[in-house]
Amino acid sequence: MIRVAICGGSGYTGIELLRILAGHPDVKVSAVTSEKSAGKKLAVLFPHLQKYGDLTYEHLNTEKLLGKADVFFLALPHGASQEAVHFFFRSGKKVIDLSADYRLRNTDTYREWYGLPHEFVKTLRKAVYGLPEIYRSKIRKASLIANPGCYPTSAILGLLPAIKSGMVDPSSVVIDSKSGTSGAGRKADLAVSFCEVNEAFRAYAIGTHRHTPEIEQELSALAGKDVAVDFTPHLLPVDRGILTTIYAKMIKRADTSSILALYNKKYGSEPFVRVLGEGQYPNIKNVRGTNFCEIGIKVNARTNTLIIVSAIDNLVKGASGQAVHNMNLMMGFEEERGLGGLALLP
Amino acid sequence: MIRVAICGGSGYTGIELLRILAGHPDVKVSAVTSEKSAGKKLAVLFPHLQKYGDLTYEHLNTEKLLGKADVFFLALPHGASQEAVHFFFRSGKKVIDLSADYRLRNTDTYREWYGLPHEFVKTLRKAVYGLPEIYRSKIRKASLIANPGCYPTSAILGLLPAIKSGMVDPSSVVIDSKSGTSGAGRKADLAVSFCEVNEAFRAYAIGTHRHTPEIEQELSALAGKDVAVDFTPHLLPVDRGILTTIYAKMIKRADTSSILALYNKKYGSEPFVRVLGEGQYPNIKNVRGTNFCEIGIKVNARTNTLIIVSAIDNLVKGASGQAVHNMNLMMGFEEERGLGGLALLP
Amino acid sequence: MIRVAICGGSGYTGIELLRILAGHPDVKVSAVTSEKSAGKKLAVLFPHLQKYGDLTYEHLNTEKLLGKADVFFLALPHGASQEAVHFFFRSGKKVIDLSADYRLRNTDTYREWYGLPHEFVKTLRKAVYGLPEIYRSKIRKASLIANPGCYPTSAILGLLPAIKSGMVDPSSVVIDSKSGTSGAGRKADLAVSFCEVNEAFRAYAIGTHRHTPEIEQELSALAGKDVAVDFTPHLLPVDRGILTTIYAKMIKRADTSSILALYNKKYGSEPFVRVLGEGQYPNIKNVRGTNFCEIGIKVNARTNTLIIVSAIDNLVKGASGQAVHNMNLMMGFEEERGLGGLALLP
Amino acid sequence: MIRVAICGGSGYTGIELLRILAGHPDVKVSAVTSEKSAGKKLAVLFPHLQKYGDLTYEHLNTEKLLGKADVFFLALPHGASQEAVHFFFRSGKKVIDLSADYRLRNTDTYREWYGLPHEFVKTLRKAVYGLPEIYRSKIRKASLIANPGCYPTSAILGLLPAIKSGMVDPSSVVIDSKSGTSGAGRKADLAVSFCEVNEAFRAYAIGTHRHTPEIEQELSALAGKDVAVDFTPHLLPVDRGILTTIYAKMIKRADTSSILALYNKKYGSEPFVRVLGEGQYPNIKNVRGTNFCEIGIKVNARTNTLIIVSAIDNLVKGASGQAVHNMNLMMGFEEERGLGGLALLP
Repeated sequence: MIRVAICGGSGYTGIELLRILAGHPDVKVSAVTSEKSAGKKLAVLFPHLQKYGDLTYEHLNTEKLLGKADVFFLALPHGASQEAVHFFFRSGKKVIDLSADYRLRNTDTYREWYGLPHEFVKTLRKAVYGLPEIYRSKIRKASLIANPGCYPTSAILGLLPAIKSGMVDPSSVVIDSKSGTSGAGRKADLAVSFCEVNEAFRAYAIGTHRHTPEIEQELSALAGKDVAVDFTPHLLPVDRGILTTIYAKMIKRADTSSILALYNKKYGSEPFVRVLGEGQYPNIKNVRGTNFCEIGIKVNARTNTLIIVSAIDNLVKGASGQAVHNMNLMMGFEEERGLGGLALLP
Repeated sequence: MIRVAICGGSGYTGIELLRILAGHPDVKVSAVTSEKSAGKKLAVLFPHLQKYGDLTYEHLNTEKLLGKADVFFLALPHGASQEAVHFFFRSGKKVIDLSADYRLRNTDTYREWYGLPHEFVKTLRKAVYGLPEIYRSKIRKASLIANPGCYPTSAILGLLPAIKSGMVDPSSVVIDSKSGTSGAGRKADLAVSFCEVNEAFRAYAIGTHRHTPEIEQELSALAGKDVAVDFTPHLLPVDRGILTTIYAKMIKRADTSSILALYNKKYGSEPFVRVLGEGQYPNIKNVRGTNFCEIGIKVNARTNTLIIVSAIDNLVKGASGQAVHNMNLMMGFEEERGLGGLALLP
Repeated sequence: MIRVAICGGSGYTGIELLRILAGHPDVKVSAVTSEKSAGKKLAVLFPHLQKYGDLTYEHLNTEKLLGKADVFFLALPHGASQEAVHFFFRSGKKVIDLSADYRLRNTDTYREWYGLPHEFVKTLRKAVYGLPEIYRSKIRKASLIANPGCYPTSAILGLLPAIKSGMVDPSSVVIDSKSGTSGAGRKADLAVSFCEVNEAFRAYAIGTHRHTPEIEQELSALAGKDVAVDFTPHLLPVDRGILTTIYAKMIKRADTSSILALYNKKYGSEPFVRVLGEGQYPNIKNVRGTNFCEIGIKVNARTNTLIIVSAIDNLVKGASGQAVHNMNLMMGFEEERGLGGLALLP
Repeated sequence: MIRVAICGGSGYTGIELLRILAGHPDVKVSAVTSEKSAGKKLAVLFPHLQKYGDLTYEHLNTEKLLGKADVFFLALPHGASQEAVHFFFRSGKKVIDLSADYRLRNTDTYREWYGLPHEFVKTLRKAVYGLPEIYRSKIRKASLIANPGCYPTSAILGLLPAIKSGMVDPSSVVIDSKSGTSGAGRKADLAVSFCEVNEAFRAYAIGTHRHTPEIEQELSALAGKDVAVDFTPHLLPVDRGILTTIYAKMIKRADTSSILALYNKKYGSEPFVRVLGEGQYPNIKNVRGTNFCEIGIKVNARTNTLIIVSAIDNLVKGASGQAVHNMNLMMGFEEERGLGGLALLP
């Protein structure tokens, strides 16, 4: 039984960690912070967290928190995470950071896209990008995990086998993503108010979204050369889910079934990737509330394009579920521990 | 480890049973029937049921099914359930019937509201109405459970302490219920097509819904006299959830806090009823995917009315979750076994 | 061609006035105010208002506005409206106030429910409650209209024929209302953010909503005696629409068709009330974007209760459409002028 | 005042024609057909069509209909339209066909994608593709209009200036479209039932959708050479709206503002195209219920890609509104006649 602290536990990512960890047999949540709700009981603010009994939100006081937990999940805003991660890591704790602060290995890129310098470069060097399908063995040995962004998780898992195999031209990649509104966080903001989002659909941050360099970093590593991609996020009128439609020009001719064989070979033993049969395509509803990534494939012979569709739950595989998966790997637990629930359908 | 069969396993109630039972450590689903999908693998029809591996839908052949399971869940249409329930029960199996066929103790009432006679009156006499908050001890000893309807569960749990205590006039009761669309079942029907339900809201079957006699049967038993109520169902543009707003004239003056005390006394040790504090009201989203019934109370002193609001997930506490709770009671398992998950929020 | 000013033109009620008036052949919108957006062009803030060309939001400066328009619509927050209404009215303008400030004739009641005194009692005496189905002839001669609240419009129109005819006991009335989220206004507020409202449903302000005294004022006038009612509002996950389900005990026995006859007699010549046939019930989607109130009736003989369901679009018949209807009456225009569009379905 | 007949008037496209034409001052709807609802009054089937009084659905009997109208709108299933269009056209009537039967000029392509031969090739030669932004002058003189598909309208309007100007490589075009559910039609079908579509999102018919050849036909004409494109439709959980995100490699370097200048030049005088400013992107909610196409532009200099986003209401600009626009052009009416309403927002 390990003790876990959640720093930033009143946002959607934090609440989702609490939901998942409530069903994890080897974990006890021992501390939860929230600047806005410090002093309030979790169960009063969120009736569905009744199970957490008398646990109370506290302020983020890293010194005070240190002795309270063995593993620290940080679901803080970008920038705010840098120092806390550094502190817990240097104090010998296992740290899983759900912010973007330790994802980009190049500090210039970080500064360019996030508008601030990285103050803890030595600690950054120790961070492992927490996508188990690529970095499983490193994660097992790591003490600091940079948990991937939601859009990057969907895009990278979709492209991994195609790019690694050299089947497609990485410079031709178009990534068209659509995300549920929980991705914008839990906040008072006119732009995510019900009447603005409901019955609406729009693209945003075209060519400028901060997940772009994260996607490019990992695709470049897979391709063995620098890759720039077109990535367009859109806002869906649903609570949860990201569906990403990817287009890539094929270098060699191949049909759908042979590409599917390639994907099944790569992902056949992955506990959280589900490759669908020919003619079947993913649906965000099939993965709702689960840590699964569902993938579908189509080769358009008329245009020589490989079209890949991936679906995840942005709060689970795109955030808190993947974080728990990483914890399981770091702690030597069974990978599916606490993550076995089926999708809520409908 | 017990073996469980689900008769009618491709509708929303059946799929929800499969979701819940997948997380129940003492259960193995050994057979699932579906007339429409017989011969198809569950995991092909529903990718999120991948965990069920090679399990295949079969036709409802009661003779053939008999040896395959210890407990039988029947999620068949009303009428269709009568004979199958009778057969499994008389063959010595534990049976949990999710249809209405064994809920009404008065066969004239059944005939009047469902338009067909009851052919198995002796078996009907053995059925226990599966609302644990009222009939827990009987359920423990029962072999045949008539699992309550979704609307009745929300209405009866809302009214139980108030009527039993004699605080309110049972003849004044108004029950205004609002249900998510999954309550209508999984089917091709223009009336539940997306463009008809989305951004829409309407009442239906006013004064004529078949759940009326079921509600009245249980309220009459609580009141110790015949009770007729106004019950109006409405269709909500959400997947899951029933919120029921109940109005009853108070016989004695009392304030909100004293009524809350009454409710807390009755429900304090119930594993699946959550009474909210003064000024807090239920939300279907707080119980989504869970077996909880959330209850809020307000006394309107200006009109001397007690207003009770209850919220459940119609597919869980209103159907499949309550059915598993009943199985746990019948089999001597811990009550919360397989039902411990927190609400999916958001 | 009359000139119209809208004070408070960037909220949902103001935008809806702009939408409706854009199609009114006798009106030119000459000024629009917004404290938050003063200085910005309407067409830049709201691309769909392109038709308003160079019209720019200005601050609410009543002196400066006075000469710019013949008719003033005020869509300001409660309290903020008192003085502006008084000023325009005393300056000889036609005024239609969409706030609650001039709806309650009893200033003690206003103070009790709105928490502030009424400073302009003489002006208040001149206000006509703008429900044309009751006060048409007074509205025609009025210069100051207190435009009814959205919930009261749906409740009063539902009950009018039943109470006026003495068919029901006014003290038994239960009003269970469900409103779309636009009723909460256009604002940054966690409580109306998408992920809180979507797939959710809840009651709020039970027994304490400020529309209660407004409903009671008008029902008391119809009944000829003081009436207190139970009124419970709920929040629907839709943009627009209010559906109100009303329960009242019948004083004399009558069947559904005779009550329908009563309603058809009262509303037969009303341009914006549609009484449905027996067995048909209203749907908010049938009135979306229109000034219609749709009404359905059912007598429950088992409980001797009259059940009335009414549906309106809260932004049209519940606010801006009714305001334009009132303007048409005050100015001697044809009643349906600018209000003839059909419901957007689906 | 012209007389108009609608063949196929009980589907969403037909109902939308009825909504639009109810506000058209020069038109009287004189006949409406529906095989399923023949004999029923429009106002009984659809309470919101009350305005159509005693108009009754009739069977599609072309001989009988001929004398009843001057203009015929056909909203029939593909294939079913061929003969009726031919008959009305050869009988000297103005015909606007909303099916796909007269859109593809190449009968081999029609046979390949629609699976049946074209029986009226001479009539097909007379059909004008009804996209006013390209074929306005031909439409003015035409008697037979093939009204464009919803997806093609959004894709072609998005690409028109870019391809015509030679700025982009037509062979690189990726068209990622997302459509509201009304695009699937009004029907009992599990795939479009509420619980399957709500909180869901998925791609379908990847590389095989029948609108592909229609898009390619028009883009090829603009490019002056054969063009094949990647086109992927997705199903959005909203009633109305198509948002199309388009990617095309630029042949010459240009920045966003110069491309916007190109688009403004092309579309500046178009009554139904709205080009947004730099940094603004379309939203389907901004065009809901209107005939507008909203367009936004972004050049991604890092990848040398032009990204174009277009939004339309699939039932208006994507079907019935464009059909009325075409009628206005054919009859010499003002283009915006009957199409002037603003978007329903929210």
